[in-house]
Amino acid sequence: ADPSALEAARDQQARLTKPAGALGVLEEVSIRLAGLAGTCPPPDPSPAAVAVFAADHGVHAQGVSPWPQEVTAQMVANFLAGGAAVNVLARQSGAAVVVVDAGVVTPLELAEDALAVDATDIQPEQPRLIARAVRKGSDDISVRPAMTREQAIRSLASGIEIAGQLAASGYRALVAGDMGIANTTASATLIAAFTGSDPASVTGRGTGIDEEAHRHKVGVVRVALARRTAENDTHPQDPIDILASVGGLEHAQIAGFILGAAAHRVPIVLDGVIAGAAALVAAALAPAALDACLAGHRSAEPGHAVALQHLGLTPLVDLELRLGEGSGAVLALPLVRSAVAVLREMATFDTAGVTEKSS
Amino acid sequence: ADPSALEAARDQQARLTKPAGALGVLEEVSIRLAGLAGTCPPPDPSPAAVAVFAADHGVHAQGVSPWPQEVTAQMVANFLAGGAAVNVLARQSGAAVVVVDAGVVTPLELAEDALAVDATDIQPEQPRLIARAVRKGSDDISVRPAMTREQAIRSLASGIEIAGQLAASGYRALVAGDMGIANTTASATLIAAFTGSDPASVTGRGTGIDEEAHRHKVGVVRVALARRTAENDTHPQDPIDILASVGGLEHAQIAGFILGAAAHRVPIVLDGVIAGAAALVAAALAPAALDACLAGHRSAEPGHAVALQHLGLTPLVDLELRLGEGSGAVLALPLVRSAVAVLREMATFDTAGVTEKSS
Repeated sequence: ADPSALEAARDQQARLTKPAGALGVLEEVSIRLAGLAGTCPPPDPSPAAVAVFAADHGVHAQGVSPWPQEVTAQMVANFLAGGAAVNVLARQSGAAVVVVDAGVVTPLELAEDALAVDATDIQPEQPRLIARAVRKGSDDISVRPAMTREQAIRSLASGIEIAGQLAASGYRALVAGDMGIANTTASATLIAAFTGSDPASVTGRGTGIDEEAHRHKVGVVRVALARRTAENDTHPQDPIDILASVGGLEHAQIAGFILGAAAHRVPIVLDGVIAGAAALVAAALAPAALDACLAGHRSAEPGHAVALQHLGLTPLVDLELRLGEGSGAVLALPLVRSAVAVLREMATFDTAGVTEKSS
Repeated sequence: ADPSALEAARDQQARLTKPAGALGVLEEVSIRLAGLAGTCPPPDPSPAAVAVFAADHGVHAQGVSPWPQEVTAQMVANFLAGGAAVNVLARQSGAAVVVVDAGVVTPLELAEDALAVDATDIQPEQPRLIARAVRKGSDDISVRPAMTREQAIRSLASGIEIAGQLAASGYRALVAGDMGIANTTASATLIAAFTGSDPASVTGRGTGIDEEAHRHKVGVVRVALARRTAENDTHPQDPIDILASVGGLEHAQIAGFILGAAAHRVPIVLDGVIAGAAALVAAALAPAALDACLAGHRSAEPGHAVALQHLGLTPLVDLELRLGEGSGAVLALPLVRSAVAVLREMATFDTAGVTEKSS
């Protein structure tokens, strides 16, 4: 972050017609975005685009989710038809939706005009799909690595490229969303691996499972972690090894998407526990990438709060959401825009002729 | 609230393509608004109007605020010029701003076109002022009642009328904002009187005072409460007596504004501790008025959380804001719109061809 832009934003906040600090977290957001842009005030973070990275998980075979794997592909169709929650919320927030096939198992039946060549080929009004799967679904992390190191790197590179294309197309805020049945299991394993937390404290109920199923899920996460520790004892802290071993294909693409946004100094609003787990990968690879990250919301998944604390990010929306897709992050976009608008548009004590408080 | 509309909204939420309950508080908001409207889905809560009720407080003489009393009038001028935080945030949320002089002490210097005859005479783009002061500032509540019972009733009636005019003008969501140096002192006293809380637990730092000044402020609230108890022993629970004794002129108008919104079945988004205190008055007069109320945010003022708990309202935004003006509530408007849009626009499992989870 640019120190002089940070300081200019702090000074400007102190001159605006309000008690010092009275806009709380919004003030911090505006200061961080000035630091990211290297200028005060920072540019309006509009228009925004949300990329929903969809992939399947081999660990689904362990019975960690009550939903069949076909639902990943069915929800991709729902995103493209505009009927999912993220579509509704993106329309409200004025954000374009792009869906990325990062590794869906079930064959996708696509309408002719639904496929985009790349992320420069998307339209604000009509969600389209970018085909970027390096394989169809990950392997079962409780048995073997999710993917090869090379597949992880190719998926990371795809996410970086998509962010760069969206930035080049004029999008001034990016949102990382996700879809993938069983992806909270891989997320919990990544979070446990990166933060050293016990699996029981970072594994949640996902889309809704009972206590017995939750105990089983925690056990699967433990097995995956133990397997990784046994196999990766030569490079225990290599972020790409951890990602390839216990992550998912969408985690790899989202981690790359974060790196790409940061490289272009475009703010990226993270959604829930999947993006949080991916952000741990990105931050381990390039800590400065966190300058571009805003936590859109705090998910009901317990691992998400652990990831946010590890990353030092303050969530903007806290409404017990646990849907994924980017929904919580899209909801936060108007708050991010408002934070910047305050710095750009509010009157100062001097210009408005308002008396300051006695000290 | 209409029971069949509530049930229809709950049923519809269960059919939408998402795990049950995955949209958390947004689902509750959509169900409550269906109950308020008496129809499912409820209407889009747009356009919105924020009314900023400004008034001064005699208790300012006790040194409870570091800001001079003229700032109330100076901020009214700032609202009318469009430079205050609430103006910036209202532009982002697409809400019209109307300023109500509910009892400002310092004479207002108004541009010719700044005065509106009534609330049917406002414009979305240009904030205007409605002159509705029944007196210039309240009396010092630590010494005598803030106002007469008749003045409280006339102020309540003004708020009711303004809400009715905005509803008749086509506004489908209202926001109650406030301005008034020293108004957190009257708010704390009202909250203590209605909830039975100790003054120390509901009195905050307002716009920013140190520990010694805070102790003094708590003492002033205690004196005001003791005076009221001594004087009002014949009608200790009469809400209008409590309001007239320890409230403020803007509290009275905001309480009326809430009643008027509820009477027209228009949702009203409450801002911070001042609106929360006024909502205690409104709820004591007509408990059903709470059906129309949404808590826009949770203020950093401790009395606000106490008021919200007493009212049973869940705040939508929780970002350590403590500015007033309606700022936190205006920030919540996109969340309220999104909650309704989900119910109106999302696909169902049936129509989208998405498989439901196994039970």
